[in-house]
Amino acid sequence: MQEILNRILEDCRRYTLEGEVASYIPELGKGNREAIGIYAATDEGDFFAGDWDEPFTIQSIAKPIFLMLAVRDNGIDVVKQHVGVEATGKPFNAIDYAEPLLLREHINPMVNIGAIAVCGLVKAADNRERFARLLDFTRRITGNPDLEVDQEVYDSEKKTGNKNRALGYLLKNSGMIYGSVEDLLDVYFAMCSLKVNCRDLARIGLLLAAHGTDRETGEQIIPREEAVFINAVLMTSGMYDGSGEFATTVGIPAKSGVGGGIMADCPGRMGIGIFSPALDKKGNSVAGIKMLERLSREMQLSIF
Amino acid sequence: MQEILNRILEDCRRYTLEGEVASYIPELGKGNREAIGIYAATDEGDFFAGDWDEPFTIQSIAKPIFLMLAVRDNGIDVVKQHVGVEATGKPFNAIDYAEPLLLREHINPMVNIGAIAVCGLVKAADNRERFARLLDFTRRITGNPDLEVDQEVYDSEKKTGNKNRALGYLLKNSGMIYGSVEDLLDVYFAMCSLKVNCRDLARIGLLLAAHGTDRETGEQIIPREEAVFINAVLMTSGMYDGSGEFATTVGIPAKSGVGGGIMADCPGRMGIGIFSPALDKKGNSVAGIKMLERLSREMQLSIF
Amino acid sequence: MQEILNRILEDCRRYTLEGEVASYIPELGKGNREAIGIYAATDEGDFFAGDWDEPFTIQSIAKPIFLMLAVRDNGIDVVKQHVGVEATGKPFNAIDYAEPLLLREHINPMVNIGAIAVCGLVKAADNRERFARLLDFTRRITGNPDLEVDQEVYDSEKKTGNKNRALGYLLKNSGMIYGSVEDLLDVYFAMCSLKVNCRDLARIGLLLAAHGTDRETGEQIIPREEAVFINAVLMTSGMYDGSGEFATTVGIPAKSGVGGGIMADCPGRMGIGIFSPALDKKGNSVAGIKMLERLSREMQLSIF
Amino acid sequence: MQEILNRILEDCRRYTLEGEVASYIPELGKGNREAIGIYAATDEGDFFAGDWDEPFTIQSIAKPIFLMLAVRDNGIDVVKQHVGVEATGKPFNAIDYAEPLLLREHINPMVNIGAIAVCGLVKAADNRERFARLLDFTRRITGNPDLEVDQEVYDSEKKTGNKNRALGYLLKNSGMIYGSVEDLLDVYFAMCSLKVNCRDLARIGLLLAAHGTDRETGEQIIPREEAVFINAVLMTSGMYDGSGEFATTVGIPAKSGVGGGIMADCPGRMGIGIFSPALDKKGNSVAGIKMLERLSREMQLSIF
Repeated sequence: MQEILNRILEDCRRYTLEGEVASYIPELGKGNREAIGIYAATDEGDFFAGDWDEPFTIQSIAKPIFLMLAVRDNGIDVVKQHVGVEATGKPFNAIDYAEPLLLREHINPMVNIGAIAVCGLVKAADNRERFARLLDFTRRITGNPDLEVDQEVYDSEKKTGNKNRALGYLLKNSGMIYGSVEDLLDVYFAMCSLKVNCRDLARIGLLLAAHGTDRETGEQIIPREEAVFINAVLMTSGMYDGSGEFATTVGIPAKSGVGGGIMADCPGRMGIGIFSPALDKKGNSVAGIKMLERLSREMQLSIF
Repeated sequence: MQEILNRILEDCRRYTLEGEVASYIPELGKGNREAIGIYAATDEGDFFAGDWDEPFTIQSIAKPIFLMLAVRDNGIDVVKQHVGVEATGKPFNAIDYAEPLLLREHINPMVNIGAIAVCGLVKAADNRERFARLLDFTRRITGNPDLEVDQEVYDSEKKTGNKNRALGYLLKNSGMIYGSVEDLLDVYFAMCSLKVNCRDLARIGLLLAAHGTDRETGEQIIPREEAVFINAVLMTSGMYDGSGEFATTVGIPAKSGVGGGIMADCPGRMGIGIFSPALDKKGNSVAGIKMLERLSREMQLSIF
Repeated sequence: MQEILNRILEDCRRYTLEGEVASYIPELGKGNREAIGIYAATDEGDFFAGDWDEPFTIQSIAKPIFLMLAVRDNGIDVVKQHVGVEATGKPFNAIDYAEPLLLREHINPMVNIGAIAVCGLVKAADNRERFARLLDFTRRITGNPDLEVDQEVYDSEKKTGNKNRALGYLLKNSGMIYGSVEDLLDVYFAMCSLKVNCRDLARIGLLLAAHGTDRETGEQIIPREEAVFINAVLMTSGMYDGSGEFATTVGIPAKSGVGGGIMADCPGRMGIGIFSPALDKKGNSVAGIKMLERLSREMQLSIF
Repeated sequence: MQEILNRILEDCRRYTLEGEVASYIPELGKGNREAIGIYAATDEGDFFAGDWDEPFTIQSIAKPIFLMLAVRDNGIDVVKQHVGVEATGKPFNAIDYAEPLLLREHINPMVNIGAIAVCGLVKAADNRERFARLLDFTRRITGNPDLEVDQEVYDSEKKTGNKNRALGYLLKNSGMIYGSVEDLLDVYFAMCSLKVNCRDLARIGLLLAAHGTDRETGEQIIPREEAVFINAVLMTSGMYDGSGEFATTVGIPAKSGVGGGIMADCPGRMGIGIFSPALDKKGNSVAGIKMLERLSREMQLSIF
């Protein structure tokens, strides 16, 4: 398998020349577009190639983490009363006098507005504790106690995050956020600014692939049915509006982030972490998707 | 004419039983749904009937005031570079990663998002001065130096105005607001909370009907071409998504507010102020529209 | 006034170089883009300049004719039960299992789907008679008994009109068309292919300007209230999604067609016919709008 | 397993009281709402319960058949050049002058417009041959040489299918249909009117579950990669806009039809056919989904 990863990575290196590094947050634009890394965590051990240990910010890959902890705290049914799981390119249709309330079914937890709502479902006395619990949980599922926020990216997100503020106030207006919007967004921005590498993402993937069981300790960190739920949500909406295409060409649950990372898992087999910062127009790593397509084909990873 | 107003008001009194008093802002819900008043200001003098002197908050009828002063400060062309004038039920289509910027042409100054943007175009060193200039201008065009903010409605607007905050941050995200969103919204909320009566609205209408000339002094308060511009915008989008219907049944420029007021003007003939707080589903005063339909038919006010 | 028309036409001739001649129907693409003409019909006589007598196809300017005759046959109220009059860039939102019926309020008579529906409201035993009545009515309101269909454009419309067929079957699906869709579209295509010149359009405008009274005979061809209704609809939606802008810069009721024509009227003053085939992105004649802006400014035609 | 099917069917029988039998096609409304059947085809043999042999029309479950044969004829890549695979509640956004062409990515093969387009990709000299090939292919993958069209439903579909005609002409307008729209729709209507039972659907499911290999003969009827492609498309969009929810609660590829049928497959394990005609608001069989949820939970069918 090591040989496969090496070969795939070299074959796909040329795709780092395509796409664009995200720049809507100024700090993100500083990413090294030549970086490319892959890491596979399996029951038989770990395999990796390229810049697997280069740090980048987790960005939208925090979304399944919000969902995991919110489901842990409230159960699947309660979470579903707040957000829907249908794929949708349009989080909502109109904001006007005639339609004062957001519809639950339009708020998918894998797009920003749904992720902010789900973040608010994580139980805590205040937003400081909410962040502490989320950071602690992320450290646990990655097995990496050193995970930290990238302070510069966080500052940049906070400074320029006016669209997320808009979404937060829409949620507030519909009674979907309790307490301060600004404080909840601080948690959201901080979590999106977590510095991770391919191994960290592969470990999250492995936990989902193993249906919630920790490889090292055998401990059931999240119940099987919750891991299955997360995988199903990732399959239908984890790759933005490229999710349908990704299902046909790769065929495993995955989540991408505009930092260039992709977290994927093949249930029963392995977790995968990918990094390459240049993105296609849908916001997914170009070289990352190419590597996953190759890996899926060579190892028949598709669950279909 | 006095006789006509009396008769129309009595005939339309039964419509005060239809529709609903706005309650999305708690303070608004306290409005007396039986109130009904009308006031016509003409070159030959003023005529009025019913509860013309009962105070209510101006609400969306502040929108043409923002537009008048923004046009005074910047000129029509510069304002049009910021907002469009097409009627649209949808202020924008989607808020997602793929569409980071609002399109100018979707921001009509007679819907909230456009009015907030236009409010920000009023020139001022800070938002305190911006409000002072707007209040001063409104007192001048109504000829009423005693106009004041209804403090309870203002507090209520500010407390519950999360959708407007969402719109404000969308504008900020698109570079359409400079400075603090919250401070600009304070100006917006305060202006929407101005306590007016039918006479105040009729005086604004008369100024537009007279193409900017003050009836008493003969002074040109706003240039003719700017008054014509405001009238045209009111015709195509002043009555929310009931503007097309209103053009066919009444046929004069008008603006309604959820406080139950309607300001209308018949160019060259008169300004009209209306009050009746129960609204139809589009947010327009039920009895108010009925009175205007009757008045237009009896006096052939339609400009078509 | 003759001098004004001459000067405006020469000043605006350079705008014939901008925009594009419509080519979605192959026959339309053959139009001479250098042509430019204007014709004003007033109570004091007719004035004209340039290529006012060059023939072109009426295209969407047939829409107010459908509406006039449908209103004659059924009354304003019945017609309003079938189509709405709100401006809308979106004739409908979605075609799917969940939304089997079109909403009346989304079907404006000045966009294709509404015009097809309104065409079907013209009373007739069959579609052959329907066309005969429409042609006869058009000859009458233009005062031109020689009006004929351009057979080549008609064939071209019929051959390539699959989007209009789609709209027709949508209407049929919602019970808004009785009888054969294909036969009704034949009427629609034939009416859109009528060969007219600027004088014909100016005469229609003059009839609307005179609130339905024929200048020559004094006969009331359509009742005043119906002429007022048509003018109001033209004001809010006659110039596609450029109607709001047109209201602010020209300020009179008008209807454009992709053949390059514009029919406009200034109530109480005059009817205007315009021709110049190169269109802007909204489908309106570039030089035509420029001439109307100039004419409105010089003669203060705006009704606001 | 037989015992499980019996128990689940009886437990879910009460759900036949919920929902509504489709009636937009009059013939469909005659369905017996008390009917309920299930059939599982596995490598170890077949298991079934209830009204598994009651015939009903296949309706939208013809969509994956169109896709299978179109992919056989053209390859996955060519089919993808014509239709997209993203889930979407909105097959397209607007039909107007400014947007003359449909966007490929909005045409999903599991909604009507995409299925009509894909039907037209099946290779044939004419539409008579196209239908013959589709019928032959369906008989082959169901192993049922007696499959026939329900003539009354076909007549009913053809008579009332104006929305599908609208979609057909939209496709024609965008160059996505060659030849006669009406003739192609005849093929589409006839295929939707095929009379099947639960066993027929289960056999199609088994073929997909076995990645294209025929259980009896071992023959590779469709290549593995094409079966995987179909399964992936079913997962993200087979259950209309309930696909995301279905992925989380059942977790296997499936396609429903408004006749009350559901075809599902658990890759590597079994094909499933379901019948119960009362539908939820999204057009899926109420009792059918309940049975699949129960079956998935008891037998851990979810592929996540």
